[in-house]
Amino acid sequence: MIHVHVVGTGLIGTSLGIALSANGTRVTLEDPSPTAVRLARDLLAGGLDADGEPDLVVVAAPPDVVATVVVAALRRFPSAVVTDVASVKESVLVDVLVSGAADGALDVTRYVGSHPMAGRERSGAAAARGDLFDGRPWVIVPHDRSSDAAVRAVRDLATSLGAAVRVMPAHEHDAAVAAVSHVPQLAASIVAACLRDLPESAVSLAGQGLRDVTRIAASDPRLWTQIIAGNALAVRDVLRQVSSQVDQVVGALDTLVDSDGEGSLGTLSRVLESGNLGHARIPGKHGSAPAVYEVVSVVVPDEPGALGRLFGDMGAAGINLEDLQLEHGFGQAVAVAEISVVPSAVEPLRAELARLGWRVHD
Amino acid sequence: MIHVHVVGTGLIGTSLGIALSANGTRVTLEDPSPTAVRLARDLLAGGLDADGEPDLVVVAAPPDVVATVVVAALRRFPSAVVTDVASVKESVLVDVLVSGAADGALDVTRYVGSHPMAGRERSGAAAARGDLFDGRPWVIVPHDRSSDAAVRAVRDLATSLGAAVRVMPAHEHDAAVAAVSHVPQLAASIVAACLRDLPESAVSLAGQGLRDVTRIAASDPRLWTQIIAGNALAVRDVLRQVSSQVDQVVGALDTLVDSDGEGSLGTLSRVLESGNLGHARIPGKHGSAPAVYEVVSVVVPDEPGALGRLFGDMGAAGINLEDLQLEHGFGQAVAVAEISVVPSAVEPLRAELARLGWRVHD
Repeated sequence: MIHVHVVGTGLIGTSLGIALSANGTRVTLEDPSPTAVRLARDLLAGGLDADGEPDLVVVAAPPDVVATVVVAALRRFPSAVVTDVASVKESVLVDVLVSGAADGALDVTRYVGSHPMAGRERSGAAAARGDLFDGRPWVIVPHDRSSDAAVRAVRDLATSLGAAVRVMPAHEHDAAVAAVSHVPQLAASIVAACLRDLPESAVSLAGQGLRDVTRIAASDPRLWTQIIAGNALAVRDVLRQVSSQVDQVVGALDTLVDSDGEGSLGTLSRVLESGNLGHARIPGKHGSAPAVYEVVSVVVPDEPGALGRLFGDMGAAGINLEDLQLEHGFGQAVAVAEISVVPSAVEPLRAELARLGWRVHD
Repeated sequence: MIHVHVVGTGLIGTSLGIALSANGTRVTLEDPSPTAVRLARDLLAGGLDADGEPDLVVVAAPPDVVATVVVAALRRFPSAVVTDVASVKESVLVDVLVSGAADGALDVTRYVGSHPMAGRERSGAAAARGDLFDGRPWVIVPHDRSSDAAVRAVRDLATSLGAAVRVMPAHEHDAAVAAVSHVPQLAASIVAACLRDLPESAVSLAGQGLRDVTRIAASDPRLWTQIIAGNALAVRDVLRQVSSQVDQVVGALDTLVDSDGEGSLGTLSRVLESGNLGHARIPGKHGSAPAVYEVVSVVVPDEPGALGRLFGDMGAAGINLEDLQLEHGFGQAVAVAEISVVPSAVEPLRAELARLGWRVHD
């Protein structure tokens, strides 16, 4: 039986411990906070009695101390493989390699960074769940000196938790998450920040579009400050593209407001079309190419049990639903459920729901 | 029986016609495209035989011709109330009043602009539905010279379609939609545009956060170019705030990358905290204060009928679901359904689903 030692019992470390313990792996836990580590133990994430050297150490510490903790773990456990789960990889790797260069006795071949892409809006051990990594990407970033055995150990860890392993260099990972995660976070926060001083009558016009764009603006500022600062170079590259596009649009609006508007519609249209093209590249469910589903809309009165009844009827109809969006009415007791299904299921679903008295639209 | 004449049979005009006809109102339809108007008629949006003067004319033409069509309608129908449904109001109003100033015979007291906030990502008569306005805000923008009777006629129209009427001056409406709709659209498009040239390995790391931020980037560029150009002044004001925030973040990242980073974490943290505060102002379902729901997460295998079975079980448990988010796993056949319910329903729902064999988390 392998022994995994988890350093840091926040959301990720505790979730790891819960999942591994449930698999029968021996897990030991460590955290600078005695309260946090006892909570994790009570959630069955592992034991506190760290007898013997672990086979694998997982550093799940806050981003700004990860490298220090990784180096300490390499020293403390002279044969264990050490990985970390921080969401920025290049800066951790550089710090570890710099320590290795300064101290020839530090065996950096046993270190391989990784990033399970499985955060939540909530943080801390209390939000942990053993299936957090189920079906999520888990990026492994080998470096020039990492041993095959170390890479294999981290890959086995990720696979055993149901994650989908991706292997890429650290700088490639950081550039990717800058574009698909860190800049979208900043954009959501900045758009939401513009609502701060609006009159109540204005924010009351908010619709589903605004809710979607700003949902992640509710994330933890302290954690995200560390993440973005840790990926400053890659985030800056993407954010400069954003800045240039915003300035182009402001320039086009200047031309419209202050002069003859020449060329401004072309600029606006190009930005919006680029958005169409970029959006079309986002993979659909399960990482496959974007799937083409069709939407059936059902009007749902907002009364206890109405949605439950709809779901019951859909279940009875045996339709496999691919996605569902609830659009809530404003100032009135009604919602619209937009149900995505494969095209061949549209007609049977419409017919069955209509037969049962639902108001169905396409 | 009142007679409503709809000019422009796209998504909004046709939906209006369907809803009003179903209410027993006499509706006549007009569109420069004979195909479009016949499709609307076949969808039971109204008749084509425009005998007699209508009581109310609704101009649902594309944004860039709305003012011209409104003025023409005021001339053609010497006693009808005329409204339009364009999503930008001040520029239409100014154009109509300028025409009124140039032609003393033009009775602008019969014109009141309005804006049913009920678009869809799809456009055209085929996407129309009679319940499009059910529970959505419908803004009415009276002006100095609009008659009370005209305002009342438009209010009655909106109310009869189930919309929630809001009354505000045109410039206030335009400033509000710049912040809650037009700038979020641009932000979504610009973030999505940054994905255009990413390697496949990078876009494959996309998660739910990115999907939400960029969902509306799939909207029609032609329509949105007109909307944003029509609201250039107000959009520019908000977009300048965005630009200034983006530049502050780029500056902070510059300091981190190129010098000692002094003050940069404070800047990042302030931007993210402002995002928290702005996000908290968005009203929840039904326009009330943001409600506090709790989330129960259920792991759902991606096999035919699994979601249907879950919905069936939820329906049988009699729980009133407040919101639902499907999180799809990546590269693996599993999804997580995040079910929002009022706090008191959490325990009964968890217990019942667990009893039925579902993997439930909170």
